[in-house]
Amino acid sequence: MFKHLKIKENRYIDTIHETAKWGAKGVWGPGETETGVCRLALSDEDKKVRDWFVEEVKSLGCKVTIDAMGNIFAVYPGKNEGLPLAIGSHLDTQPTGGRYDGILGVLGGLEVIRTMKDNDFVPNYPIAVIDWTNEEGARFPKSLMSSSVWAEVIDKEEVYNLKSITDKKPVTVLEELERIGYKGETEVSYKANPIKAHFEIHIEQGPILEENEKKIGVVNGVQAYSWTNVRVKGLAVHTGSTPFKSRSDALLAASAMIVKGNEIAKKHSGLFSVGSIECLPNVANVVPEEVVFIADVRSTADESLYAIKKEYEAEFTKIAGDLGKNTTVVFEELITFENTRFDKKCIECVRSSASELFGEDKIMDIISGPGHDSCATATKVPTTMIFIPSKNGISHNPAEYSSPEQCHEGFQVLLNSVLKYDSLRTD
Amino acid sequence: MFKHLKIKENRYIDTIHETAKWGAKGVWGPGETETGVCRLALSDEDKKVRDWFVEEVKSLGCKVTIDAMGNIFAVYPGKNEGLPLAIGSHLDTQPTGGRYDGILGVLGGLEVIRTMKDNDFVPNYPIAVIDWTNEEGARFPKSLMSSSVWAEVIDKEEVYNLKSITDKKPVTVLEELERIGYKGETEVSYKANPIKAHFEIHIEQGPILEENEKKIGVVNGVQAYSWTNVRVKGLAVHTGSTPFKSRSDALLAASAMIVKGNEIAKKHSGLFSVGSIECLPNVANVVPEEVVFIADVRSTADESLYAIKKEYEAEFTKIAGDLGKNTTVVFEELITFENTRFDKKCIECVRSSASELFGEDKIMDIISGPGHDSCATATKVPTTMIFIPSKNGISHNPAEYSSPEQCHEGFQVLLNSVLKYDSLRTD
Repeated sequence: MFKHLKIKENRYIDTIHETAKWGAKGVWGPGETETGVCRLALSDEDKKVRDWFVEEVKSLGCKVTIDAMGNIFAVYPGKNEGLPLAIGSHLDTQPTGGRYDGILGVLGGLEVIRTMKDNDFVPNYPIAVIDWTNEEGARFPKSLMSSSVWAEVIDKEEVYNLKSITDKKPVTVLEELERIGYKGETEVSYKANPIKAHFEIHIEQGPILEENEKKIGVVNGVQAYSWTNVRVKGLAVHTGSTPFKSRSDALLAASAMIVKGNEIAKKHSGLFSVGSIECLPNVANVVPEEVVFIADVRSTADESLYAIKKEYEAEFTKIAGDLGKNTTVVFEELITFENTRFDKKCIECVRSSASELFGEDKIMDIISGPGHDSCATATKVPTTMIFIPSKNGISHNPAEYSSPEQCHEGFQVLLNSVLKYDSLRTD
Repeated sequence: MFKHLKIKENRYIDTIHETAKWGAKGVWGPGETETGVCRLALSDEDKKVRDWFVEEVKSLGCKVTIDAMGNIFAVYPGKNEGLPLAIGSHLDTQPTGGRYDGILGVLGGLEVIRTMKDNDFVPNYPIAVIDWTNEEGARFPKSLMSSSVWAEVIDKEEVYNLKSITDKKPVTVLEELERIGYKGETEVSYKANPIKAHFEIHIEQGPILEENEKKIGVVNGVQAYSWTNVRVKGLAVHTGSTPFKSRSDALLAASAMIVKGNEIAKKHSGLFSVGSIECLPNVANVVPEEVVFIADVRSTADESLYAIKKEYEAEFTKIAGDLGKNTTVVFEELITFENTRFDKKCIECVRSSASELFGEDKIMDIISGPGHDSCATATKVPTTMIFIPSKNGISHNPAEYSSPEQCHEGFQVLLNSVLKYDSLRTD
């Protein structure tokens, strides 16, 4: 059995802080490690951490495969041939990201491999660690981008042409994959490049575990979410000489829509958020002629998600109609994930491992608010997730924080869960 | 007398179209001349049109002076020494600008000089044509920027440090003045470099003359306006995991403010507009932590302007307070011009010239909605403006248009008004 394997004190947290040098940004405290990380997908900084990761896993004896979306699969051999059991997440961050979101999941996988290697432990079947490309959807506006292509939920060619929204001069996914040298040879497909199951450890990014004084969240699933590009068109005229009745003000219309979207989501017990907005020509004395924003809708019930979307589309269209004869609005759905329910056997491996380590009263079942790569893998293979607490529930912010102890506890649960699943395999 | 001087057919309109090559952008029709112009202040394109203008006026016998804000003064000699009577406007445009706004005023002045030269006509006193730097406030967010420094309404050093908002990498006014070689030696001051009076011909930028079938607007003044930078701060958190009650959403707050600002202005019979907005970090799944927008308020009554400003500051503060414990708002006034009343003698020169040319029923008195360089000069010297019709009232848009006939009629009124003023001078 594997219960003698212990995650080594401090090494994992040192690796988190060491790799944060690639993109360190956003000081939130006086300590050396008290900055966030800005490591946008397929940027130079992303290339650096990828290069380091590939070297690191190779030195541990992993075979590395890179697919045509830049997803990195590092496979540690087992006693038997068979599909690798995967631990995956992402090394990219938000522009105002922290040190843990995504990173914890990939480095957690690395730590599992290191621990097996330290102890000359050979699992029954291969164990893979995966770095999925552009989970955040920050630089290229499609979250869970490359795990979704792998799961064949979205189309590769469409994603290749997606343009960056954080660069002054927009570039495409394909251009950046080629530029940083991470457009691999392997086909991007759960069929051509399969895995047995997918485990992911992640910070909660919400306040629930902390408020309930729990160490581990046993994630049962992920709430539904949907992103839609909302394009409001108006007419550019002078702000000083154009009376209200003659205006078609795209920003006024968009503002009314954002306020209304929040109201609608509240009514349906869901969430509506606009994090990204662009205004053209964006000059103080010109009534805006075009505003584009992304509406992010979430709900723990699919019906509620669809009700919110239907209602806001009707209301936004009405707002555009009311605000000037040249005001129009069009909707382009970017991505929709219905509620994800994780695999019972995977969940049970996490629940029993966590319970054995910390006792029933230190763990709780939880539903994830944010989407994760596990939402994509769950559409095709048994999947689950492990949450550790987030200080004050903050994430996507440099001040995102989980303590070394919390990370350590999570990694030990990850190790035990994965090896428990491995021990139960008969294939 | 000067009444035999006629503006030459076609030359003026050819010059408008010829100089539009420096920045031509935004196709609105099939014709070669049916594009707008994007010629941002102190850009490479602005330098090119300035170089051309300086050569052109020198070839007509003008003495050219450039002051330390890049304002160009081209002075055509008169029979007597004395302060030059000025015709001024600006050669910079909006990013989505047309071919007439500002340009008409400078080229109108040029055409007046050309016509005097053609006819060997010598005015009583010198006539100046002025190109004022950055009237638009599009690239550097202070409109009437350099005429206001000249009028000592705003401070030169403060303006020098103003950063561009349309460049990927912001640059300062001073850097760009030096880079394009237009930081002149002359002191920027109505005292050190005085003029006798200021005439400006401009497109109306509104629908009033067209709707009333008038050829010429005799501008009596300009409505009051005020620009304020509104900075809304919130907290960046994940959109998927953060319930509404735990959010401080800077964009939701800003949206509610924009809607409210419009309502307040309507109540006070004024205008409120937001043309420019920036959102940070501007990522779809991050609740915005900071939104900055410029509130542009206008009114034909100073009391109403101040009432709108006072009310929106109170309401915006209340909105911030209601939308999350980390939401705050701060206001930074950028510029305020109270209602401008133009000089009676100047107005009378325009009224009588236009009336003699086209008859009483083709002219009307009008108040300008937008601000112009004449608002700045009017604080120190006798000033007035001449408006010609704008097709559909559109401006700050490539489709901005006044017909060749309308331009011609305006130029003839400008010539006659200026020479009438000159003929009445006794100094």
